Amino acid sequence: MAEPVSEERIQHEFAPQAEVEVAARAMESFARSHGSQGHRVVLITSGGTKVPLESRTVRFLDNFSSGRRGAASAEYFLKAEYAVIFLHRHRSMYPYSRRYTAVNWLDALHLLPAPAEHSRPGHAPAELSTAGSTHAQPAFRVEADPSHLQGIVQVLQDYHSMKDSGMLLPVEFNTLSDYLHLLLAAAKALSPLGSNAMFYLAAAVSDFYIPASEMPEHKIQSSSGPLQITMKMVPKMLSPLVKDWAPKAFVVSFKLETDTSILLERAHKALATYRHQAVVANVLDTLRSSVVIVTNTAETKLTVSKEEDSLGVEIEEKIISDLTSRHTNFIEGQFNELNSTTQAI
Amino acid sequence: MAEPVSEERIQHEFAPQAEVEVAARAMESFARSHGSQGHRVVLITSGGTKVPLESRTVRFLDNFSSGRRGAASAEYFLKAEYAVIFLHRHRSMYPYSRRYTAVNWLDALHLLPAPAEHSRPGHAPAELSTAGSTHAQPAFRVEADPSHLQGIVQVLQDYHSMKDSGMLLPVEFNTLSDYLHLLLAAAKALSPLGSNAMFYLAAAVSDFYIPASEMPEHKIQSSSGPLQITMKMVPKMLSPLVKDWAPKAFVVSFKLETDTSILLERAHKALATYRHQAVVANVLDTLRSSVVIVTNTAETKLTVSKEEDSLGVEIEEKIISDLTSRHTNFIEGQFNELNSTTQAI
Repeated sequence: MAEPVSEERIQHEFAPQAEVEVAARAMESFARSHGSQGHRVVLITSGGTKVPLESRTVRFLDNFSSGRRGAASAEYFLKAEYAVIFLHRHRSMYPYSRRYTAVNWLDALHLLPAPAEHSRPGHAPAELSTAGSTHAQPAFRVEADPSHLQGIVQVLQDYHSMKDSGMLLPVEFNTLSDYLHLLLAAAKALSPLGSNAMFYLAAAVSDFYIPASEMPEHKIQSSSGPLQITMKMVPKMLSPLVKDWAPKAFVVSFKLETDTSILLERAHKALATYRHQAVVANVLDTLRSSVVIVTNTAETKLTVSKEEDSLGVEIEEKIISDLTSRHTNFIEGQFNELNSTTQAI
Repeated sequence: MAEPVSEERIQHEFAPQAEVEVAARAMESFARSHGSQGHRVVLITSGGTKVPLESRTVRFLDNFSSGRRGAASAEYFLKAEYAVIFLHRHRSMYPYSRRYTAVNWLDALHLLPAPAEHSRPGHAPAELSTAGSTHAQPAFRVEADPSHLQGIVQVLQDYHSMKDSGMLLPVEFNTLSDYLHLLLAAAKALSPLGSNAMFYLAAAVSDFYIPASEMPEHKIQSSSGPLQITMKMVPKMLSPLVKDWAPKAFVVSFKLETDTSILLERAHKALATYRHQAVVANVLDTLRSSVVIVTNTAETKLTVSKEEDSLGVEIEEKIISDLTSRHTNFIEGQFNELNSTTQAI
């Protein structure tokens, strides 16, 4: 097993590319504001991490992850009235817009002549001429054809009302180092919320990396023959997160395997090692139709049938419904424990 | 150096995930149709290749490449009236829409009440109600706010006129194996066009891979300790492409380095080895402002000044302008050579 990690080790061994300080301040103020309003706050991590093989990076190791699960989960946490910090890989899927990842938006947009007098209260004027033209041109408006964009009306209503509510804070990472620094910063930001904070660690984080000191500066030359790579193990962040950084929070990790036979054993092993609250266990081939929520006392299987799938039911809705009730019980449990301790004194 | 590759070796060692046969037929018919109209046809490869480390892939090696250069180049080749086969990495940048990669389209779209009587000739009706509602709701149309989408009118005009013209055939790859198979298929499709075909090989193709026979089936377990990876060298496709697959075509390869001092030497070495027509040499830090076109007889430096950049001038415009004139000379050269050979007989 990889050794646990101290804050010092993260600072020294992993040089981030992202602007960690700016994001750290944003997360802190977001958590403080929502905490003071009594909101629960969840940190969702989403997408894969990039592990450079060269310091001026041409090549990198990556993890399979579109970020679909994290992006979908964010929507259901928002529906359950959680404030959400969405810590996601640059260009991975994003809440709401995830539904149109396979769409070329230019196919859905059309130019229409803008009617001369057609006022749109509360909306910026959308008339404009062809760029670069010097003489008068017919003005256009740009309209989306909804037949290319399934469910767009509902999605736009949800998206804009979410934006107005201020309940979502997006933060981006790209490399493994960025991720480690931002997770530490998020833990510090959420720790003051105690059991009202949840960590939902869905990102596919690399288990291996090359320390900066052992990395070649320049692009590895293929003329030097076959490539030998030796990678160190990435420190496990879950251990200090649960023990030191946010000890009262409700922490959920993910376990993805390709081999079904070892999945549950590995999930239980993670719980025993890190002593957090739940593992969402899943297998690569059935990611979207089946997961098991593993806790110390139970294994709860959640599935989406073909019929449900055809009706648009997503497994993330069931995962978030399960975890938010567990979170409620967890908060009440800590409250009762606190009360009985107080009474005993 | 890696050994050259035979078609048999590609068939045996690299199992594609893409539907190569379907794409091969589409490329063949595209090339035949445009060839018969006397069009020049360019194959552009674009984006990085994914090299799996496990056969049920969780982890993979990747190459830095957004696909920006390939996508931008496609637009300028289309402007120069080339028919374009755009062989690109899944979800890498795409011609025209590339300008909005950093935009969340949902921010640019707004719901507006659809006026009751407002006919739009030649356009599908855009009115619709909120999804799932059972009683009458106000109908909406979806309009894009052009202030979020710089230059959208010109881009939509170019995009839709390109689509109507049938001059672009997009083909996707994801893994290195897909890429190798599709490049072979493209070469076969373009070979009958002789010197009217150009290969513009801008994709960042991995130099290393793990043969399927040496790959673990399941996700590599991090509990087994540090990771040792040994990768074989990917066979160089340029050699059989130039010699056997499309021997009369105009072939352009790319050389990306991080170390300026070895760039030109490596470009000349590639020309001497593969005996193709040109290398576009560039350095990672200055990709978008400077390249050198290296041929057997000349080094031509192309640059975009800061002033040009602020006016929207892109280096791909200069690269394509340079290469298309070289292509014209190349075609005329082959024609003259043919003529003088005929006269000599």
